[in-house]
Amino acid sequence: MAKKIAKVVGNMLIAQSGGPTVVINQSLVGAVLEAKKHQEIQKIYGALHGIKGILNEDLIDLGRESVATLKAVAQTPSSGLGSVRKKPTPEDCAKIFEKLKKHNVRYFFYIGGNDSAETAHIINEEAKQAGYEMHCFHIPKTVDNDLRENDHTPGFASSAKFVAQAFMGDDLDNAALPGVKINVIMGRHAGFLTAASALARTYPGAGPHLIYLPERPFDLEKFPEQVKAAVDKFGRCVVAVSEGISDSSGLAIAAAFTKEVDSHGNVQLSGSGALGDALVGLIKQKTDITRVRADTFGYLQRSFPGVVSENDAKEAFAAGREAVKCATGADVDGSIAIRRKPGKQYQIYFERVELRSVAKETRHMPDAFIAPNGCDVTKAFLDYARPIVGKLPQIGRFKRIPVKK
Amino acid sequence: MAKKIAKVVGNMLIAQSGGPTVVINQSLVGAVLEAKKHQEIQKIYGALHGIKGILNEDLIDLGRESVATLKAVAQTPSSGLGSVRKKPTPEDCAKIFEKLKKHNVRYFFYIGGNDSAETAHIINEEAKQAGYEMHCFHIPKTVDNDLRENDHTPGFASSAKFVAQAFMGDDLDNAALPGVKINVIMGRHAGFLTAASALARTYPGAGPHLIYLPERPFDLEKFPEQVKAAVDKFGRCVVAVSEGISDSSGLAIAAAFTKEVDSHGNVQLSGSGALGDALVGLIKQKTDITRVRADTFGYLQRSFPGVVSENDAKEAFAAGREAVKCATGADVDGSIAIRRKPGKQYQIYFERVELRSVAKETRHMPDAFIAPNGCDVTKAFLDYARPIVGKLPQIGRFKRIPVKK
Repeated sequence: MAKKIAKVVGNMLIAQSGGPTVVINQSLVGAVLEAKKHQEIQKIYGALHGIKGILNEDLIDLGRESVATLKAVAQTPSSGLGSVRKKPTPEDCAKIFEKLKKHNVRYFFYIGGNDSAETAHIINEEAKQAGYEMHCFHIPKTVDNDLRENDHTPGFASSAKFVAQAFMGDDLDNAALPGVKINVIMGRHAGFLTAASALARTYPGAGPHLIYLPERPFDLEKFPEQVKAAVDKFGRCVVAVSEGISDSSGLAIAAAFTKEVDSHGNVQLSGSGALGDALVGLIKQKTDITRVRADTFGYLQRSFPGVVSENDAKEAFAAGREAVKCATGADVDGSIAIRRKPGKQYQIYFERVELRSVAKETRHMPDAFIAPNGCDVTKAFLDYARPIVGKLPQIGRFKRIPVKK
Repeated sequence: MAKKIAKVVGNMLIAQSGGPTVVINQSLVGAVLEAKKHQEIQKIYGALHGIKGILNEDLIDLGRESVATLKAVAQTPSSGLGSVRKKPTPEDCAKIFEKLKKHNVRYFFYIGGNDSAETAHIINEEAKQAGYEMHCFHIPKTVDNDLRENDHTPGFASSAKFVAQAFMGDDLDNAALPGVKINVIMGRHAGFLTAASALARTYPGAGPHLIYLPERPFDLEKFPEQVKAAVDKFGRCVVAVSEGISDSSGLAIAAAFTKEVDSHGNVQLSGSGALGDALVGLIKQKTDITRVRADTFGYLQRSFPGVVSENDAKEAFAAGREAVKCATGADVDGSIAIRRKPGKQYQIYFERVELRSVAKETRHMPDAFIAPNGCDVTKAFLDYARPIVGKLPQIGRFKRIPVKK
């Protein structure tokens, strides 16, 4: 392949940040393999555990990893370089540049969500102020699918596939032993992953029968009534609840059951069954339903090997490759956004967008994706999600021809 | 295929009981397809929701389901006929015979665990006392792997595969964002499924770093110390905990956090995150570790479509077929047990055993499978479990060649 010379010659550094996904290593390896094609990129460094690894100079030489290893890592869940949840202080940024300069890093790539985009944005601004010539790119990743500018983000589709498959099985489990089953799904402010549970419906009467998203206020009075109504109708009820559901004042329902806060100021929602258990208690207290259970899908949603959307894996790899192409091309900085082409056939393209346009704030489920009753999704959402998530397992059911009593 | 005439001509009834598995329908369909070959079996009925369906005469005509439907159902998780957790009273048994006689049922098959074997045993004894000629067979199923007489039971290997894969991903997640991660696994009295987490270890230092089984008393004092020691050694700690862990007096640790009891007298363990959350609280209280999380794998372990051990699916199907072969052959009643042939090559065979020999009591992890320190498994367990569970996803990791600071 033809090699071209870009504006500045130097080393590349790439790192991963935030919650892992099953395809975040695809982006990493996509970037590394593309970087190997460009002469202006000399050494290819990976920082261990994001900016923490830069601060501590815990760097590894990714250029010396074999292609076989790179390909194996690409197909492995979780962040191969390790991750971090750390918002750099101004002092951190000053130190980061010291380290980047010391290692002559001229191409910097940070894979992560909106918090990570903010981190990349801060580092980029500091670099500009310091007059240090560096190409700085954010590569998108988040199972929450809440990055602005993007049709969807790498990591979401595979987690959505996990959630949909889990609901397919759990709905059949609930049909076998009827009762109320509440499943708590990841998604702090955006309901996309919870909404993906609707993909599990493959026959009339299939669950989830109720879907509660963080985009609509959760009503503790109405909830038991809606569950009771579903049980009266279906003889059972499977419920999808976002971990991020909040009351009408915006207070997280889960906040009453947990106290932990990370350095970005986010309340810990995952890694606890408290919300699900509290909702079970509510149903038992307010209705006469006896069999009520809750599962919190937890970290399995973002790290389960073997349940991967093919599109997601491809797009994650391509997003990493695209970032290096942009950085070695005409662009100085930016974030790689995934856009969808209009038309019936599912097709995406990448667009470079400003770092600040994806940093900090998050995207929510659009109103058109949420049913008017507030506890279901629309056909528009299913049409949006199906091609991204791809094929789901086939479910077989008996015709159930009754025998005369 | 040649058809033979057995002692008694009449209808067959099959039902499913207890917790669903991803391969319980393989056994059902294996039995139905075999039954179609035998002239002495006339109608093939399925009772909906186990003995409840017999009592209510909620029967369906499985003989009229197409082979395509049967094959699709075989590959679908959860109990296609619906399930039940109900221990029949003597009055129930009297009524069951009324219904069985009314429908001229002469071949009765009940798929389930030890509680279900007990139910089949009671029904069989009642039939004998009533002088009603009926072939009565129990077909084994349980993700807990706790049926006596069996090397392992259909359903276990697929759930074990799910647990192992979940730990593979979760261990990498924990390696990326280090801390303490506690995963609570199904298994009321038997630790086989929790032990299967050890199959996730594919590199030096991989988790789970601690494995707590119900076969060893759980020490609330020692637990935080052992976790702390693992964190000091590995910089993190992934823990597998059986939902059934008990103190030295035999009292379930989870019992303090739940009150629900089923009709077999069992405390509800699944469908709640209480145990995991309580253990997290304990670690935070007794150590200085700040990032501590828990996930309870819950019903996903037994109902997740697409994560199936090939051996498990085959053996479950063959166990159903074998039951019908025995019932139409020389045998009147019994349970189908899976035995393993000695030797290096993994091979199983079936043996008819007495119903009472698998009823009621459960099997536990043998001492040879449990490490002397009480919080790990032995090589003997891994050698036992690996061929049953089969292939797991490949994990790729970087060599991590350090860059000079």
